[in-house]
Amino acid sequence: MNALPIRKDLIGLSPYGAPQLVVPVRLNVNENPFAPSAALVDAMAAAVRSVAVDLNRYPDRDAIELRQALARFISQESDVSVLSQNVWAANGSNEIMLQLLQLFGGPGRQLITFTPTYSMYVDYCRDTFTEFSTLPRTVDFTVDRELLDEAMSQNPDVIILTSPNNPTGTFLPIELVDYVCERFTGVVIVDEAYAEFRTQGTQSAVSRVGVHPHLVVTRTMSKAFSCAGIRLGYAIASEEVIDAVQLVRLPYHLSAVTQAVACAAVSFADELLGQVDVIRQEREALRTWMLDQGFDVAPSEANFLMFGQFSDRDVVWAQLLERGVLIRQVGPSGWLRVTIGTPEENKVFRSALLDVVSSGITGTERK
Amino acid sequence: MNALPIRKDLIGLSPYGAPQLVVPVRLNVNENPFAPSAALVDAMAAAVRSVAVDLNRYPDRDAIELRQALARFISQESDVSVLSQNVWAANGSNEIMLQLLQLFGGPGRQLITFTPTYSMYVDYCRDTFTEFSTLPRTVDFTVDRELLDEAMSQNPDVIILTSPNNPTGTFLPIELVDYVCERFTGVVIVDEAYAEFRTQGTQSAVSRVGVHPHLVVTRTMSKAFSCAGIRLGYAIASEEVIDAVQLVRLPYHLSAVTQAVACAAVSFADELLGQVDVIRQEREALRTWMLDQGFDVAPSEANFLMFGQFSDRDVVWAQLLERGVLIRQVGPSGWLRVTIGTPEENKVFRSALLDVVSSGITGTERK
Repeated sequence: MNALPIRKDLIGLSPYGAPQLVVPVRLNVNENPFAPSAALVDAMAAAVRSVAVDLNRYPDRDAIELRQALARFISQESDVSVLSQNVWAANGSNEIMLQLLQLFGGPGRQLITFTPTYSMYVDYCRDTFTEFSTLPRTVDFTVDRELLDEAMSQNPDVIILTSPNNPTGTFLPIELVDYVCERFTGVVIVDEAYAEFRTQGTQSAVSRVGVHPHLVVTRTMSKAFSCAGIRLGYAIASEEVIDAVQLVRLPYHLSAVTQAVACAAVSFADELLGQVDVIRQEREALRTWMLDQGFDVAPSEANFLMFGQFSDRDVVWAQLLERGVLIRQVGPSGWLRVTIGTPEENKVFRSALLDVVSSGITGTERK
Repeated sequence: MNALPIRKDLIGLSPYGAPQLVVPVRLNVNENPFAPSAALVDAMAAAVRSVAVDLNRYPDRDAIELRQALARFISQESDVSVLSQNVWAANGSNEIMLQLLQLFGGPGRQLITFTPTYSMYVDYCRDTFTEFSTLPRTVDFTVDRELLDEAMSQNPDVIILTSPNNPTGTFLPIELVDYVCERFTGVVIVDEAYAEFRTQGTQSAVSRVGVHPHLVVTRTMSKAFSCAGIRLGYAIASEEVIDAVQLVRLPYHLSAVTQAVACAAVSFADELLGQVDVIRQEREALRTWMLDQGFDVAPSEANFLMFGQFSDRDVVWAQLLERGVLIRQVGPSGWLRVTIGTPEENKVFRSALLDVVSSGITGTERK
């Protein structure tokens, strides 16, 4: 491959991505375990049938109907008033993030985020030639005022806050969003891919987009909406930000089929968000069980738990896989991340985990 | 908008895109005028129904089934032997092009192409911080050995050749693809968005991907496949190039729905390519008519014609729009581009054009 004249900083790298393995219990990429209902499948097929007769034409470049639907959803979910002009949609929140860094990042510009956090941020920076900087979170994986002050003192162009944070599950209180937005003149991105799983009654950063014109909140339909397969991410921000994003979006980036299927899914929001309650309860039950078993578990407001600490997490991961359970090796050394599955899947995971840690295999012992 | 800390080179720009107007005859963005058949609509709806039951899961990151289908299609269409490892797919050929320039372009790297040509290339360069350079085509809009020599003498990193070229329709003989690939150590991209409309018997650059490891040919399902709405572009190249592209693709960039709908469309290739014959015949008939009427018309092997020359093309464009016909103001001053529509649409266009040029309105006179 090195014979090709590829960019020098890409030579020797591997493509990003968790293994896509076929195993009985897949708890590795924070997918929602509940498949779309028969009614939603019907609605999606009907939506595609309805747009298919016109597929020789380019899609609505501005995805107006979908952005209106998402604006109504967000207004209800976060008890705010958001219009379609405040919403932008793209192929997954990773395309959203790429567009935001094409707009606000670039050569000579710097982004700061707080580790451990989502492992794609460094790739978005690499793709947009933005300098990637990190500050370590506190020992309990939170971000506090002192850390925000330290980040701002470095004069970055973009600060990314992830709430709930991946892979730790840590939620960021709205007071800290205000704290940084009131003091920082750059762009603040709050990545809320898992926001719908947060404790009810706590406020999403969406509630502040009307207050802070440089605040961008990103969401996705991959998690709470149970639609990882349709690749639909979106951003909520001031109209100025949404207008500006259109300078860097590829024209017709969002297919007519994606727009139609996503609209169908948003119209099932009540049904889909109902399943979020089940996942939230399962998360709390699993965390309690893990703590009872003597594991360390980070408090999580997402659909996953980070737990440990193992003397060799790779051994534990491989042993779980041998038992048909696929989880993920992310976060600090010694920790693993498990996605919350169905009650049945979580039961299988608990048994497999107990089996692994009582196996006596070197590496599975607690640190 | 300028209050936002957006990249300095984006300040004051407008988003790319032709007006999306609702008019009786839309001949402005080189769409295929033939809508998917009832059988294809059924197949697409069925394909989506079949993947919808699993949409809570991320899609196949490598889009294997679709790449296999496209490889079979290309092998048949261009009489070559291409495997799925030689094919890469993304959301429109513009995402393909962005990925190629993320890989082979970037700061300090230069791309050369030959004008007049597709107006998005400069945007792909801007999005990837690649220096954009151009050389003018010959007076009859062709590219010859002398021009290729001149391009290579500038030591660019990437050369883009467009065949058939947009907006002129000019085809590039395969001998010239060989000529540049044999002499140039950088990457040669041949943009074949309109290749299926070429004169039968002429060779696509696809026939050379097995010979030149630095040659990348891009195609799309938007034109001949009549699927602009599904946003499916693809690249055919050596396995080394396709492997390398995966370093810069966003993970799960192609939705399960897009993959399923595109597979359905490829399985209707015979039906869809049959309509290409009709469009080719209509193109030749329209060109002959235009020449008979005394217009200048560039020879075209695509699904559009560039014609002129008008003293004020914007007036002609606006007058056609008033008569319900939307075409496009691209190419050199004085020229316009019209997409080949259905026989009925082309008839309406001919009447409207005659009406406009005989109206005596200032600007509609020939240069």
